[in-house]
This record gives sequence, C-alpha cells and structure tokens, in this order.
Amino acid sequence: MKAIVCVTLKPDVLDPQGKAIQRAAAALGHSAIREVRQGKLFEVEVDAVDRGAAERLLREVAGKLLSNPVIEDFRIERIEA
Amino acid sequence: MKAIVCVTLKPDVLDPQGKAIQRAAAALGHSAIREVRQGKLFEVEVDAVDRGAAERLLREVAGKLLSNPVIEDFRIERIEA
Repeated sequence: MKAIVCVTLKPDVLDPQGKAIQRAAAALGHSAIREVRQGKLFEVEVDAVDRGAAERLLREVAGKLLSNPVIEDFRIERIEA
Repeated sequence: MKAIVCVTLKPDVLDPQGKAIQRAAAALGHSAIREVRQGKLFEVEVDAVDRGAAERLLREVAGKLLSNPVIEDFRIERIEA
C-alpha cells in the first residue's frame, strides 16, 4: 500500500522558511499569498494486510522516525491500496 | 482559502534521505516499510474570489517559488474554503 504522511510544525513554532517564501511571493506581486508554512511530506510504500495494520505501523514510524514530537505534528493524509 | 501544495522529487531522481529513513525503519524491525521518499509540503493561506482563481495563483507560485522544475514535481493536494 502507498501512504502519504504529512509532518508540520506545531502552530506555535515559528517558520522562517515559510515567512521568506510569503515575502518572496509578495515581492513578485502575489500579495494574495497571505501565509506559507513549510512542512515535510513522506510517500511510504508499506506491506500490510489491511488499512488498519498499515495505519498502526505508519503511526509508530511517523512518531519515532519521521517527526520530532516536541515541535512537530504528523498526520496520515491518505492510504491507497 | 487554505491550500496544501505537495512538492516531490521526480521519480528518476535519487532520494538518499528517504532511503536512510527506510533503512532506519528496517533496523527498528519495521521491514514492512518498503520504500520512503521525502518531499516538501506547503500550507498556504491565499486570498482568492473562488477555487479556480486560487488554483491558478497557486500553480504559478508553486512553479516559480516552491519547486525546482528540473528535479521536482508539484501538485495541489487540496483547497479548502
């Protein structure tokens, strides 16, 4: 199965990279881009008997390897058979 | 409107970070994690009159600022009102 795991900074953590992108967009005339926050995306190919098993494994790996729980949140965006 | 833009390496571009994560998962006993590819995720707050306008603006900004078209692809994962 193929899954997408998203890792984002917690809302109260500053994101200077995202801010720089928002400023660059404004400098190019795109002031309609009000805010940008950058995160990480993982495309994971996983062997599992069903969606539930895939999700349990992904939650464990996302918490241990893909994210830093002090400053980041993760979510499983989708799981495709 | 809030949008999620995903930027991923093109399929033929090597991803040593993703490979390192897959190996670390295997070392922790999670050999069911067969492949990992790392990408970037952008959460963008955009002012637009409708979804179509938001998508046009996001495509322009994603192509110019968020991705490197030589080695990366982007897609607009979702747009929420």
